[in-house]
Amino acid sequence: MDFKQIVMGRYATKKFDGRKIPQDKVDELFELILCAPSSWNIQPWKIKVINDEETKKKLAPVSWDQPQITTCSHLLVFCADSDVMSCINRLEKLMAKNMSVQKAKEMTDMMRGAFKNSTEEYCLAWAQRQTYLALENALLGAKALGFDSCPMEGFSGEEYSKILKLPKNIVPTALCAIGFAADTPQPKVRFDKKDIFF
Amino acid sequence: MDFKQIVMGRYATKKFDGRKIPQDKVDELFELILCAPSSWNIQPWKIKVINDEETKKKLAPVSWDQPQITTCSHLLVFCADSDVMSCINRLEKLMAKNMSVQKAKEMTDMMRGAFKNSTEEYCLAWAQRQTYLALENALLGAKALGFDSCPMEGFSGEEYSKILKLPKNIVPTALCAIGFAADTPQPKVRFDKKDIFF
Repeated sequence: MDFKQIVMGRYATKKFDGRKIPQDKVDELFELILCAPSSWNIQPWKIKVINDEETKKKLAPVSWDQPQITTCSHLLVFCADSDVMSCINRLEKLMAKNMSVQKAKEMTDMMRGAFKNSTEEYCLAWAQRQTYLALENALLGAKALGFDSCPMEGFSGEEYSKILKLPKNIVPTALCAIGFAADTPQPKVRFDKKDIFF
Repeated sequence: MDFKQIVMGRYATKKFDGRKIPQDKVDELFELILCAPSSWNIQPWKIKVINDEETKKKLAPVSWDQPQITTCSHLLVFCADSDVMSCINRLEKLMAKNMSVQKAKEMTDMMRGAFKNSTEEYCLAWAQRQTYLALENALLGAKALGFDSCPMEGFSGEEYSKILKLPKNIVPTALCAIGFAADTPQPKVRFDKKDIFF
């Protein structure tokens, strides 16, 4: 499938058939998500993977009871990590495996400098934007791997945090339900090129 | 090129060779960007296309003089549209071409209800997150179409707004420089799967 077919074929699946995606395909999807870009490669995200029916049932009522939650194979909760400094610290250790310790320190010190006066609110908003890059890899990756997906913002982040017992800095930002579609895609409706590009 | 090759092959190109991307390829990329998903399909974005040397030279100093700005073929300025209500009004007209006027009104009234108490700041942050979905289509789309790209946040949005004479609601959020690479990709450095998925 070429990239245009993936982009055009992907759609927000409103109902899945409940079948489980084979684990090797799920692992391939995770690899595609991991390789998403982020500013300075800070990767300020964590992704909670939910594939048990009990947790899905708890999450459904705080997700407007949308059928994707309970009919999908896996629900991926894309969380932004607002603790950007910790992400940078972890990145430094990772970079030091591929370059000198000093160079890794220099590069990450530059990042620390850029964020040193940032509020937690700014860090969260920034991390959330990055998270949407990874989310798009998930949506396109699902299609490329032969299954379907639905991006969702209609849920209570606060309730998700409680149910999933997330630390304060790991903020549920968007969902990506994946599975096999049990609905039919509608034609894409988009603004004209001339209304978007200028 | 399969999707994994696109994801793995894309990288933040730090220098381009100055060649122009043929217009038909640029048009194909725009189509891929247009078809990005967004919450409720509101598409709260505008993309300023810069391919003249004079404007690039004006933007370079307010982009930390990064060489991508002046060596790329086209610089795409991804702007979030904080005037979400206007986007919804335009969407209603677009939807009414594909369904009854009443159904389009009902659906967009639901969206209006969801945003009616939202501050401009909230709308902007929300629109910016959506914009990163379109940005990822641009980055992957460039690779799929045979050229290169660089996502960039290192620029002054305020100065861009002045130089490009943008209305207040059209907020420069990220850049995507596209062209043909004149550098060499480095190996991808990413956190382990177990550090991201949980």
